Amino acid sequence: IETKLPKVGTTIFTVMSQLALEHKAVNLGQGFPDFEPPQPLRDALARAMDEGRNQYAPMHGTAGLREQIALKTERLYGRKVDVDREITVTSGATEALFAAMAAVVRAGDEVIVFDPAYDSYEPAIDLQGARAVHIPLTVPAFSIDWQRVRDAITPKTRMILVNSPHNPSGAVLSAGDLDELAAIVRDTSIVVLSDEVYEHIVYDGAQHQSVLRHPELAERSFVISSFGKTYHCTGWKVGYAIAPPALSAEFRKVHQYLTFCTFHPAQVAFAEFMASSPEHYLELPAFYQAKRDRFRALLAPSRFKLLDVPGGYFQLVDYSAIRDEDDVAFSRWLVEQGGVAGIPLTPFYETAPGTRLLRLCFAKSDATMEAGAERLCRL
Amino acid sequence: IETKLPKVGTTIFTVMSQLALEHKAVNLGQGFPDFEPPQPLRDALARAMDEGRNQYAPMHGTAGLREQIALKTERLYGRKVDVDREITVTSGATEALFAAMAAVVRAGDEVIVFDPAYDSYEPAIDLQGARAVHIPLTVPAFSIDWQRVRDAITPKTRMILVNSPHNPSGAVLSAGDLDELAAIVRDTSIVVLSDEVYEHIVYDGAQHQSVLRHPELAERSFVISSFGKTYHCTGWKVGYAIAPPALSAEFRKVHQYLTFCTFHPAQVAFAEFMASSPEHYLELPAFYQAKRDRFRALLAPSRFKLLDVPGGYFQLVDYSAIRDEDDVAFSRWLVEQGGVAGIPLTPFYETAPGTRLLRLCFAKSDATMEAGAERLCRL
Ligand SMILES: CSCCC(=O)C(=O)O
Ligand SMILES: CSCCC(=O)C(=O)O
Repeated sequence: IETKLPKVGTTIFTVMSQLALEHKAVNLGQGFPDFEPPQPLRDALARAMDEGRNQYAPMHGTAGLREQIALKTERLYGRKVDVDREITVTSGATEALFAAMAAVVRAGDEVIVFDPAYDSYEPAIDLQGARAVHIPLTVPAFSIDWQRVRDAITPKTRMILVNSPHNPSGAVLSAGDLDELAAIVRDTSIVVLSDEVYEHIVYDGAQHQSVLRHPELAERSFVISSFGKTYHCTGWKVGYAIAPPALSAEFRKVHQYLTFCTFHPAQVAFAEFMASSPEHYLELPAFYQAKRDRFRALLAPSRFKLLDVPGGYFQLVDYSAIRDEDDVAFSRWLVEQGGVAGIPLTPFYETAPGTRLLRLCFAKSDATMEAGAERLCRL
Repeated sequence: IETKLPKVGTTIFTVMSQLALEHKAVNLGQGFPDFEPPQPLRDALARAMDEGRNQYAPMHGTAGLREQIALKTERLYGRKVDVDREITVTSGATEALFAAMAAVVRAGDEVIVFDPAYDSYEPAIDLQGARAVHIPLTVPAFSIDWQRVRDAITPKTRMILVNSPHNPSGAVLSAGDLDELAAIVRDTSIVVLSDEVYEHIVYDGAQHQSVLRHPELAERSFVISSFGKTYHCTGWKVGYAIAPPALSAEFRKVHQYLTFCTFHPAQVAFAEFMASSPEHYLELPAFYQAKRDRFRALLAPSRFKLLDVPGGYFQLVDYSAIRDEDDVAFSRWLVEQGGVAGIPLTPFYETAPGTRLLRLCFAKSDATMEAGAERLCRL
């Protein structure tokens, strides 16, 4: 059988998590917390099962959860979204990303992505018979050079995919970036896909510049978020997409036949928990900022150089003072010899720039951070 | 925005469930039980959350659940499958069906489906840029005319999609059917996709003729099943695909970027429950046969003619003695005037044959069946 996805192997996240297990390494690789979702949220899920919410949920999500998403969106971004026509609950943000592309991207189209790019983007584009056009972000700030974007637009450009806070760098888009993007797509039929799964994790008092804050962009965008990232339960696989009615209608046609609907009891639980505990997401920046600052303090005595982290829960470190080798080789050496698993950036690039950077996840308990940092400081 | 799926509207299941609500009708439409999954299974799920199984599951499913699936497959179908390389857990059977098609079907390919066909098949084929070739099943037994299949094969035929027990008719494939299918695909590169979500629901002492029983077919097939159908929890959205290593590898490349992995606590719970209570699936035929027989007895005094039900949990009824109109019109009349929601067959056809048949779901409590039957007997 000839493969439809010749470039795809096992994701780097799975590879590194397996290596971490094998070598009993401290796992700072794959992006997931090593602490638990709130007890009341788990209790609400158990209760939903006992109350008989075990059969199909509505295809586009429960009314209760969509209402909470709408309330949050208005509260944080000042945008009223139509609960019935603009919100679709999905089986994780990954499904939402795929469905958005499958809904509007056709064979022969081009989709602009910024490298380093999350690894699911390109295969999802390829499966539409379309082509990813890669634009590297400008290091070390991982910012977008908008002139390069303007130069990359062709009549085939169907979509521009942005991601803020950015994985793996933590870079965030500014209000000015959104204006640049809006100017580029104005009077075209280009759709924006905005991956905002770390929307609640921005630091130093900054505001997340959601595409939903920008009325002109919001009218032509899919905005994707993740309950797994916000509520410390990446294994529950619930996400959502917000898009104007015409785009949502196309999105749902795909979603309906991709997974039909999403684990019902979790939807009931998230709706209940969001209603009773909105402070959870309001306090998330402070919660993760404490972790970020603690992790950076722990690494201060090491020979790693720490890049700035404006958002997300990853710390990029420059390891060039420790070893002179590419990041894939270094990450293997580190897990085998150093006892710490991190994620190299090369798999996120079409053409790896050869930077000496490694991604470390600090969505971890104090004990895990300390154990990891202790090993990292020994190098 | 021009749609990629011009034929797709809201599924008939959602439409009828909404109408049932509006008209306070007894809902015998969308296929889901109105009773609950076993208490020990729900308890196991709650326990899995408390034990910290809340982050990403392995991409292809937990080892424990894949082991239980392998044990069941050997026990029931006499086939040993490789736990690591041949089983992938998915976010419902719908995802598994989509992933199987996306993995091997390319633009320009043809996929043979049998009408009436479950409504997710064709959009999933269309999204690959491929074409569904529809072959009607022979009524009233809904059997396959293999000569028509032979005649439909072209160099572009990439896949044949079979479904047994069949939705909506309940028809089951025989061992002879599998031999016919094997003869057709022998020495070709055609892949079989076998939708067996009702595998445990066959009646009158019959054995389910899984494609997995047929070594030659199993070597070139994706076999799809559903925990939702087996454990009375359609809203938990867990299914799986079994396929030989080369096909599974391609399947996983797609699955990895479609949903990445599936709700983790449910996987832990299913593994535990399958290990401790294998009698659940062993007793499922008797459990549903009692329901089928009860429902048929309740409908005996009505003016509906009942078709045979060899498998699945749907009863087809011929309503021609009651009204002379097409099935879509009749199903609307029935929900509005008769107070019962059923599913017309026309949406399952490319070219509706004009049969006067309606599908009624008997995966229902005694009270629901009685309430529905009482209304149906009044007509
Ligand atoms: C789906 S596994 C990858 C998790 C993640 O978001 C990351 O590590 O970047
Ligand atoms: C995914 S909703 C449809 C459920 C079902 O399998 C059916 O009613 O046929």
